[in-house]
Formats: sequence, C-alpha cells, structure tokens
Amino acid sequence: MTTTQVTLVQIDNYGPWTVTPEPRREMDLQTLQSRLFADIAQFVGHRDAYVFFTRFDNMIAVTNGVDDAAHAALQESIGNRYPVSISLGTAVAERPVDALTSANRRLQTEGSAQDEHRTEVLAGEYLAETTDTDLQIAHFDVVDVTGKYTDQINEFDTFINVERAYASLMHHLREAHGALSFFVGGDNIISVCPDLPERAFTDAVSHVESDVGVELQVGVGTGSSAHEAGFTAKHALEDCRRDGTSVELFGAPAIGD
Amino acid sequence: MTTTQVTLVQIDNYGPWTVTPEPRREMDLQTLQSRLFADIAQFVGHRDAYVFFTRFDNMIAVTNGVDDAAHAALQESIGNRYPVSISLGTAVAERPVDALTSANRRLQTEGSAQDEHRTEVLAGEYLAETTDTDLQIAHFDVVDVTGKYTDQINEFDTFINVERAYASLMHHLREAHGALSFFVGGDNIISVCPDLPERAFTDAVSHVESDVGVELQVGVGTGSSAHEAGFTAKHALEDCRRDGTSVELFGAPAIGD
Amino acid sequence: MTTTQVTLVQIDNYGPWTVTPEPRREMDLQTLQSRLFADIAQFVGHRDAYVFFTRFDNMIAVTNGVDDAAHAALQESIGNRYPVSISLGTAVAERPVDALTSANRRLQTEGSAQDEHRTEVLAGEYLAETTDTDLQIAHFDVVDVTGKYTDQINEFDTFINVERAYASLMHHLREAHGALSFFVGGDNIISVCPDLPERAFTDAVSHVESDVGVELQVGVGTGSSAHEAGFTAKHALEDCRRDGTSVELFGAPAIGD
Amino acid sequence: MTTTQVTLVQIDNYGPWTVTPEPRREMDLQTLQSRLFADIAQFVGHRDAYVFFTRFDNMIAVTNGVDDAAHAALQESIGNRYPVSISLGTAVAERPVDALTSANRRLQTEGSAQDEHRTEVLAGEYLAETTDTDLQIAHFDVVDVTGKYTDQINEFDTFINVERAYASLMHHLREAHGALSFFVGGDNIISVCPDLPERAFTDAVSHVESDVGVELQVGVGTGSSAHEAGFTAKHALEDCRRDGTSVELFGAPAIGD
Repeated sequence: MTTTQVTLVQIDNYGPWTVTPEPRREMDLQTLQSRLFADIAQFVGHRDAYVFFTRFDNMIAVTNGVDDAAHAALQESIGNRYPVSISLGTAVAERPVDALTSANRRLQTEGSAQDEHRTEVLAGEYLAETTDTDLQIAHFDVVDVTGKYTDQINEFDTFINVERAYASLMHHLREAHGALSFFVGGDNIISVCPDLPERAFTDAVSHVESDVGVELQVGVGTGSSAHEAGFTAKHALEDCRRDGTSVELFGAPAIGD
Repeated sequence: MTTTQVTLVQIDNYGPWTVTPEPRREMDLQTLQSRLFADIAQFVGHRDAYVFFTRFDNMIAVTNGVDDAAHAALQESIGNRYPVSISLGTAVAERPVDALTSANRRLQTEGSAQDEHRTEVLAGEYLAETTDTDLQIAHFDVVDVTGKYTDQINEFDTFINVERAYASLMHHLREAHGALSFFVGGDNIISVCPDLPERAFTDAVSHVESDVGVELQVGVGTGSSAHEAGFTAKHALEDCRRDGTSVELFGAPAIGD
Repeated sequence: MTTTQVTLVQIDNYGPWTVTPEPRREMDLQTLQSRLFADIAQFVGHRDAYVFFTRFDNMIAVTNGVDDAAHAALQESIGNRYPVSISLGTAVAERPVDALTSANRRLQTEGSAQDEHRTEVLAGEYLAETTDTDLQIAHFDVVDVTGKYTDQINEFDTFINVERAYASLMHHLREAHGALSFFVGGDNIISVCPDLPERAFTDAVSHVESDVGVELQVGVGTGSSAHEAGFTAKHALEDCRRDGTSVELFGAPAIGD
Repeated sequence: MTTTQVTLVQIDNYGPWTVTPEPRREMDLQTLQSRLFADIAQFVGHRDAYVFFTRFDNMIAVTNGVDDAAHAALQESIGNRYPVSISLGTAVAERPVDALTSANRRLQTEGSAQDEHRTEVLAGEYLAETTDTDLQIAHFDVVDVTGKYTDQINEFDTFINVERAYASLMHHLREAHGALSFFVGGDNIISVCPDLPERAFTDAVSHVESDVGVELQVGVGTGSSAHEAGFTAKHALEDCRRDGTSVELFGAPAIGD
C-alpha cells in the first residue's frame, strides 16, 4: 500500500500581480515562472522529492521525506529572492489525488488564491517515517517519437500528438486510480500512482493507443521517495527501449509487446 | 496580411544525453530545461520576440525583428553555458504553421534530432523589414478561473480543465486557421494567428465551451513584433475582464458576451 | 574550541576550457561562474552552510553539518547541469586555515587543477557530530559607508576603499589567527575564525583603521553551523549600528566605541 | 582617443532591505546578488557591453553601443523579476574614471542610495555613434598561476596573492591613467583604459611585480565595443601565453619578456 505525501505550491495572489499596475512583459513572466520552478526543483530534488510545473502558478510536489522545517526553509528562501511569495499545503494519503485534495484544502480554507492578505500559508501534515513501498511511479514515453514524429512532421503537430496522449493518459489514470500524471518535457510523462498491478499499466497503454492512436511504453518503480521510485522507473523504461516491451515493472519479469 | 517569422529551437541529441551513461536525476533535467527556456525567453524577450516552452527539448519562437546575427549569438551563448547545444531553424510565412513547417524542415534536412553529428545547425531566412500588421496575437484565459476552479477543487482537477480547454483550442485554431497556440501558465493561452476577423475568435470561444465546457475570454492585438502584438492583446483582455465581454480586439468596438 | 569543516570547491580544468578552442565571450564566463556560485550557495545554504565566491573557479565553503552524501549529490547535480564539473576536498581542523590546507591537499595530491584527467574528485573527512561552539563567525562592515563613500565619491573609488579595508583585514586575521575572511558584497566582510576573544576583534578594527584609514564595526557569533554563527553575528552587528559600538559579541556586553 | 560610455548600476535601498524586518539569510543574499549580476551580464553581453560585479550592490558597466531604450528595458525587466529594483546612471568621457564619476553623479544628485523614495532612476547620456578606437581594454593574468600557486599552496593564500596583485594594479592604473580595473575570477583582471601606449602596460606589470612580487602578463585590444576590445585583448593574451611575452598589443609586434 502506498503512502503519498503531496505538497501544493501556490504563488500568492499571482494573477493580479501580473497585471498591476499594468500587464507585465510576457517573457519576464515566463522567466520568473520557470526559474521559480527550477529553484523549487533543485530544493526538493536534493531531498529526493519531485515537483511538477503543472500550471506554474500552482505546482504539485511529491514530498515524502521532506519535513515541515524544510518546507519553511523553502518558503523563506523564495520570499527572500523573488518579487512574489508562495503558500505551501501538505497532506498524506494512500492515493495521490486524495493527498492533493487534502493539501489543497489547507490553503483554500485560509482564503482565496487571490486574497492579497492570505500570503505565505504553511500548513500541513508530514510523514514521520518512510518505507520502501510508499511510492509507486510510472515513467511513460512515446515509442520512437523521434523517428515517427520529431524528424517527420512540424514541431507543433508533434506537440499536438504528445499533448493528446498526455490528456488521454492523465484523465484515464485520474479517473480509474486516483493517480496524478505530469508531462515533463519531450515525450515523457511521469505518473504518481497508488499501488497498481501490471495490468493497470497495460490497460493504460492500450487505452491511449485506442483513444488517440499514440503508442506508449512505460517503466514502473517503487521506493521510499519520489526519486527512488522514479529512478527505478527510468531504469525499467530503459529495459522497454532495449527489449521492445511496452510495460516493465522494476524487478518483475517483462510483459511482451 | 500577417508575415510571421518562426524559429524552431531544438536541443541537439537531447534524449540520448538524458540517459547516458545512465538516466540522470529528473529534477536536474527539469532544472536544466526550465532554465534553458528562461534564458532564451530573456534573450528573445529583450528583442520583443516570444518563445514558448512547448516540449522544452523543442521550443517554438516568434522572432519577427530578430536577425541572423542575434540567432548566432544566442546559439553561441547557450553552447558556452550549458552541457547541451541547440540548433535553430527559422522561416517566414503568412500563416504561423507554414512558417514553422518550413523552419522545421531546415533542421530535418540536416539530419535527425538524435544524430550526434548534427549539432548547432543555424539555418534560416529572416525578415529584412517589419510592418505594424505583421503579427496578430490572441491572449485567452478562463473566465473566473480562481472562483470557479482554483479555490474550489483540487489543483489537478483544475489543471485537467485548463488542459482540456487548451487541447480543444489548440486543435481548433490549428486546423481552422493554421494558428499556433501555447499554454503559458495559470489559465493563459497565447495564440499566434494569421490575420483573423473577430468572428474567428467568437467561434473559437464557442467551440471550446461546447466541446469541453470551459468558458474562455480573449483579447486580440496586432503589431510589428510578438511583444507589440501580445501586449495590445493583454490590454484588450483586461477590457474583457473589466467589461465582462468575451472577445476584445484592440482598437475595435467590444463584442457583447 | 572551534571545529571547522572546510570544503574547497574547484572547477575542473577550467582555465583551459575558457580558451578552447578559442577564448569564450567574457560575459558568458561571468554568467556561468556567478550562476554556478549561486547554485552552490543555495545547495549548501539550505543545509546551514556557507560558501564564498573567492576566485569563482575555486570557492571556499564552511560545511559543518554537511555530510559526504550531500557533497556527492552536489557534485552530481552540477555535472548534470553545467558544461564544467567540480572537485570537492573537505577537511576538519580547529583553525579554518588548517582545515582548508588539508582539504586543498586532498585535491592537490590527486593531480593538477588543470589536469584534464583529474575530474570530479570527491575526497574528505566529515564531522560526525556538531556542537554549539564549533564555529565562530565575525561579520564586519564599514561605518556609514553610504554617507561617507557611496553618496559622495565615484563607485570605483568607494570600491578601492572597501577593497583596501578587506585586503588589510584578510591579511591581518590570516596571519594573526588563521582566520579566513571573505568580501561578500557591499561593504560586508565575513570572517570564519577560530575561538577568539573580544580583544582580537578590537585589535582587528584598530589595525584596519590605522593601516588604511577605513573605520569598521563587527558583530561576532558562535554556533554549530555557519548559518547559526553567521546569523548571530548579523544580529550583533545590528547592535553596533543601533548603539554606535564597534564590536559586539552575541550575548556579551557591548564594548564602547 | 577613447570615448568610454560607463553605466553605474545601483540596487535601490539595498542595505536596509537586507536587514528588514530582520537580517536575511546570507546565502539567499549571495544568490540574489550573483544571479542579478548574471542577468545583467547576459543582457549587456548580448549587446557587446561588459558589466563587472564590483561590490554587487553597485556594479560598473562599459556600455558603448547600448542606448537609452535598452537601459530602460533592463531596468523594467529586473523590476519585474526581483524583489529589488535598480537605478542606472550613464555618462561618456575620454577617461573611464571621468565617465564613471559623471554617471555616478547623476544618481547622487537624485538622492541617497539608501533613500527609499529614490528608486528606478534612469539618467544619462548615450553615445550616438561608435568608432573602432572608442575603447581600449587590457586583460591581465598571473604567469603560471596554477603551477606556482593553485597546485602548491592553500586556496586562501593563493587568493591573497591574486588580491594583492589586483589591489596594486587597480590603484596604479587608477592613479596613473584614470583606468578602471576589475577582478573577474581566477587570476584574471580586466582594465578599461584610456588610449595608452605599450610602455604604460610594461610599467604596470613592473609596478605590480616590484610592489607585491606577483608576475603578470597582459594582452591589450581596441574596439568599438567592450566585447570587441576585450576579445582582441584575450587573443593578445593568448599570444603572451604561447610566446612567453609579458605584453602583447593586438596587431602590434611582441615585446620581449
């Protein structure tokens, strides 16, 4: 059984800030957002956690092993170095989506994301201990994306295909299992899952192929942290690439394509 | 009539690099990708151009007003500061998608994106002059996203709604008009369009609402650079917010909601 | 008695890299260096350690409380995100300069800083435990630098005065006590000291004033980490500013100006 | 005859900000300062200008070829992305120090660097045209710094030697010629000079050697921009390294060691 600690990172009152006193230059906003994400990725990454950019003004992190002091340190450091501040809500549940809902509610009950007086909320519960099966992470990519898409058609049409595969997968895994799936660039999608059997991944791959016609492959790993689970998933995905299989569970026998 | 200069930015041989000699830590890759994007956003932004992160390993830029020397300077600077290099293909056409296809082909004909010997390609044609109507940019967002979504449901489900609206819009505008639409964070989507009448935007908003049930509003601007067109679009969108209208063309009378 | 853990951070084979195949643009090198320093500052800072930019290609860090796994993680992350790699030598001693000499020797015995085959050395000893008196840090600044210099003369001449004060202080504290002093911007100098009595700081301030005619004030703190010692030093320096005293030891009675 | 355009970049009211409401973490300040410098280096660097970190809260830039619109764009972009803002004063003179004094006065007359109401000053005069001899830049380094220092003694003592050489050189060139010299990391010093003959550089090298016992070599270049002059200086310095000479003027016959 998984135990997922999820942190919602929300920029305080960001929307109004972007247009006050008048709209700010778009490339400055893009720079600010992506650097803020990069800084959070470094901070949590060195603690073996993951953060996903999601909508940039709201980011979702999987923070098993990161305690309240570290969350406070992150919040202070961002406040010291950016023109905006962040609120952090954290919660724990078996299913990722339930942890997120609970984490999210901790911010929502404090006020609106656009309430200028609701800043730097730090609210949450944190896991005291971790075990080797707390997290299950699946790393998907598109079979031969370079040969089939990148080198053949224009980048926007490639992107449309990747986006459609992502939309199909994120919706399926959310509805069927309460998993949270994130596009992480290129043709890569990382899903934070509850404890799912191999069949669930075979089904997901089939679902996407029949839904939008894009062929995925997936490596799955478990671990006590997002990095540990995600890293074994990456290695399992390498096995797919090498062996032509479509689903590989780290440590489990391969399933034929 | 629009004249759009599009640049495809492609990280050379990036996929293989991310797993050589073994998979690299995901948060390091996320940091690298988002900072690379931020640097390019600063570089082109100060020249009044726009770049969109798209898949991060491939980014699409609208570069009217940025000449070949500037493209060469960007390529050199990235090569000096990152462990990866970039190739740049640039082309000009009336419709954004045609410019991209042509820009993209300039890289594809030089070799595969994963050919380790095809690095730092710099190929393109650049506009010698600019005029005030070269670009048309539409800036969409979700009506009351904070009140309807962010403050009410969990962030992932909010994100699913925003993604669905984006997927619907990007596909519609691509197919109907050859426009390129990009999610830029929050609930914002920026579309680089050919010269479209008001009705095209009214139709797009209606299409998304009937397709996925998300209500959008949009400001539209024109200009000689992406910044100029995008900035007038932002101002027009502010008019939507203030007046409750769903489509505003900069300088044109408002269309009722 | 202090117990100082010092880490030497050395960019591998950096000099030759900066001119291969021909000299790289200076502003790209400056950007690379200062961002690398910033990343290391964030990494160690969140572990309550300090790093100083020193010569940028060689940086000196005070890393009490940072273990070998963290040093390895830093080295890997830099290697993943920069075109250069770093070597790290760490050692422990009562006097900061002795810890540095020992840390430095761990790299020197592995080969030259410009040996292209000597890369990513990770060698050191790390403190297993920390105590509240492990570190003593002094934070100096110039009395009324804005009123006397910044607002009066040109910035270069202000800088000459600050540099002269720094050169005088760094040399004095190095020779007299084996302390390591670093200019950290503005008019601020941070000295990592062995356990020194108040008189040593009074003498240092007098020495600089008689040597180069610049009036300093200093707050001194102790702690189990660089941040803890440095933070109490900052608070002590605030007392100097408020009370017009020239030396304040955290927790000790003030010394008259 | 040279024509040097110098810009003083000053963070507004920075000192008070760093301790309000209480002292901020030192590593956050270091990160902020060095990233701000890096961003300015990228901005001006792509316009063939140079900026030097100097005291970080005050930075000196050589901005021939960068007009008022570009200065305004830089100021706006920093204001959009940092928790602090910057003021910019620019002036032109034959001697670098005179240009700086004049640029500096433009800020000083507007109010104190610590006046909270004096923010985002943008004041200056900008060169309308550039010629090939506007700038003369000298690039110094220490002869065999790795063999004599880095690989032999501890880094702090190496740094003391480099600092002493820098202090001696900066003072000499400032007093003798009104040149501005900046340490740029490693063993490198860049001097922005008026039009000086070869003998001035021979004298400077001799002065430093007799004053502090450190042996320097120097390449000198001229150009219409800082990059152009600095780049030819770097190439000339490469000639020193290859030929064992101590002064090389780009395009001039070598002077014996």
